[in-house]
Amino acid sequence: MALVFSENSVGLVSPKVARFDQPLALACGRQLNEYEIIYETYGELNEQRSNAVLICHALSGHHHAAGYHSVEDRKPGWWDTCIGPGKAIDTNKFFVVSLNNLGGCNGSTGPGSRNPETGKIYGADFPMVTVEDWVHSQARLADRLGIEQWAAVVGGSLGGMQALQWSISYPERIRHCVAIAAAPKLSAQNIAFNEVARQAILSDPDFLDGFFIEHGTTPKRGLKLARMVGHITYLSDDSMGTKFGRELKTSQLNFDVNNVEFQVESYLRYQGEEFSGRFDANTYLIMTKALDYFDPAAVHDGNLAKTFAHAQASFYLISFTTDWRFSPARSKEIADALIAAKKNVVSVEIDAPQGHDAFLMPIARYLQAFSSYMNRIEI
Amino acid sequence: MALVFSENSVGLVSPKVARFDQPLALACGRQLNEYEIIYETYGELNEQRSNAVLICHALSGHHHAAGYHSVEDRKPGWWDTCIGPGKAIDTNKFFVVSLNNLGGCNGSTGPGSRNPETGKIYGADFPMVTVEDWVHSQARLADRLGIEQWAAVVGGSLGGMQALQWSISYPERIRHCVAIAAAPKLSAQNIAFNEVARQAILSDPDFLDGFFIEHGTTPKRGLKLARMVGHITYLSDDSMGTKFGRELKTSQLNFDVNNVEFQVESYLRYQGEEFSGRFDANTYLIMTKALDYFDPAAVHDGNLAKTFAHAQASFYLISFTTDWRFSPARSKEIADALIAAKKNVVSVEIDAPQGHDAFLMPIARYLQAFSSYMNRIEI
Repeated sequence: MALVFSENSVGLVSPKVARFDQPLALACGRQLNEYEIIYETYGELNEQRSNAVLICHALSGHHHAAGYHSVEDRKPGWWDTCIGPGKAIDTNKFFVVSLNNLGGCNGSTGPGSRNPETGKIYGADFPMVTVEDWVHSQARLADRLGIEQWAAVVGGSLGGMQALQWSISYPERIRHCVAIAAAPKLSAQNIAFNEVARQAILSDPDFLDGFFIEHGTTPKRGLKLARMVGHITYLSDDSMGTKFGRELKTSQLNFDVNNVEFQVESYLRYQGEEFSGRFDANTYLIMTKALDYFDPAAVHDGNLAKTFAHAQASFYLISFTTDWRFSPARSKEIADALIAAKKNVVSVEIDAPQGHDAFLMPIARYLQAFSSYMNRIEI
Repeated sequence: MALVFSENSVGLVSPKVARFDQPLALACGRQLNEYEIIYETYGELNEQRSNAVLICHALSGHHHAAGYHSVEDRKPGWWDTCIGPGKAIDTNKFFVVSLNNLGGCNGSTGPGSRNPETGKIYGADFPMVTVEDWVHSQARLADRLGIEQWAAVVGGSLGGMQALQWSISYPERIRHCVAIAAAPKLSAQNIAFNEVARQAILSDPDFLDGFFIEHGTTPKRGLKLARMVGHITYLSDDSMGTKFGRELKTSQLNFDVNNVEFQVESYLRYQGEEFSGRFDANTYLIMTKALDYFDPAAVHDGNLAKTFAHAQASFYLISFTTDWRFSPARSKEIADALIAAKKNVVSVEIDAPQGHDAFLMPIARYLQAFSSYMNRIEI
């Protein structure tokens, strides 16, 4: 294996599935009577069970965060830059757990699964799940794995929101909360972009009110548009400019709406096409709604400091200068609330041209700061 | 009439149509053999014909910029805040000409018109038109109206690009160029948003390759999505936050993808619906392409100063602090090039929370600065 994978890779990994039959009550008022969660683990759980780190994924993420499923894999897991031997989340030190959230489309129970009560594919009948619901389901997974307390819960974007929610829902079960490129709630503009994406899916004739799988269709046009608009918000204006500028696809203008003129159009279309072939439309709707609904301070009249009153974790917040989806100002809101609540918080702003997507990128100062924090965690 | 309309309104106005049968060669290599331009005028042309001001419209604009078409009209023309007796573009002083551009859908020859050569509705066969093409067609309209030289050519956004192009294409025919919330060319991000809008239209099954009128359909879903995504870029994050925040549409969450949860979703859907009922999908494609293609410096290897070398006009540039579509930095690019080209330029940045749409709003300092410049124009 040493010949195939680099020394700082977790190498070959295999997902496992945990099945649960104790009903899970959801924020929407419904419940899941039985469900499965697919997950991967990297590293070894120590004897004291004190070195477990939970990775929470973002909108289109999943359980495969590091390593390879086969030697033929061209790409490793989605956060391989940060998880592995000697990396920020060092698998020589930590036992890392990464799962696919409920409602997902990569192996955990979701809209593409069969409803055991009806024998039919859930489709649009899958219940709405929220960040809180996910955290509860993740706590069940922790129980199953014998993890009483996470050394750290870590996530970027929507994953960061789950890390924050852990500190609120299970204060005694999380020692460190690492929220990267996160926000305490979406802005109206964030919701607006999500709504455009949802309308693209909902208005695709192949969506068939969400029961497309049983009708053998896929709302690819809607998913493609949803991904395209999402993708623009993941990149910064600067990084798009550097990457594509106004470079033409062919040597001269076509003066035609059907032909791609500029590289950036070609790139976006490709991203959208590729995504529409692998992602479930109902999952996309659920994930964007979970983002919209996240607002832990709502039950405290918007007082975020009060929301964190019972948190026991130490907090580490990372933001990126050109992230306009969840800008450094949004991380500052969280930091200010934690300071007001007299919590232990360190906040780092990283100079990075890549926009929101920076949290997935190998940016030297980011990896250094992230590693430095994780290395200091006592296990 | 004094009883019906306020003193600073141009009052009742009627559009006129100018028909042209001299072929217009277009940048795309095709030509329009005959065409009509619909326009309105406000104020009186003076004897010296020295007080004419041309208004150029933006993406979804048209000829009806000021006043009312009937006493029942609930809304005046789209730039009534700036055009009228005593207003920034003072109709007591100026003779104002406002037209609908070729390719439009409000009365000028466009994709919804009948092609005289085939007897069929143009649809997708309407040739691509560019900012340069529009300026040439506007010059023909000026000839028709006996206007040798404009006192000023004025426009916001895509309209500002036309004003800039006038100073380049017809340096001797424009004394003042007023470009508001404009840019010298689109960024990759700007193009990306346009591309999402176009893909929404092109992938709507009712678009029928652009021949939807002759098939009796309307690609309303695509147009609605296009407008929704466009609309987000016209507003600032701040103004959306102030206007909608996270206010719920109903008193509690529905946990349902089909129901509107937040006010901002409801607003966007309404804007999209309304637009899809009144705008032509082919026109939308043409207008976004015209934006993408605008890059007058391209023929000078990107040297914008060189591009303005022969301009004779005085330039007045206005930008708005929270405009992230065409930010103040984009106006500065224009100003810097004009300074390098030793042109007469004044640039003003207005504090305004409204984003790109600010150029349509009654913002005191904006109206004051705009009026002050226009008042000093000698006629």
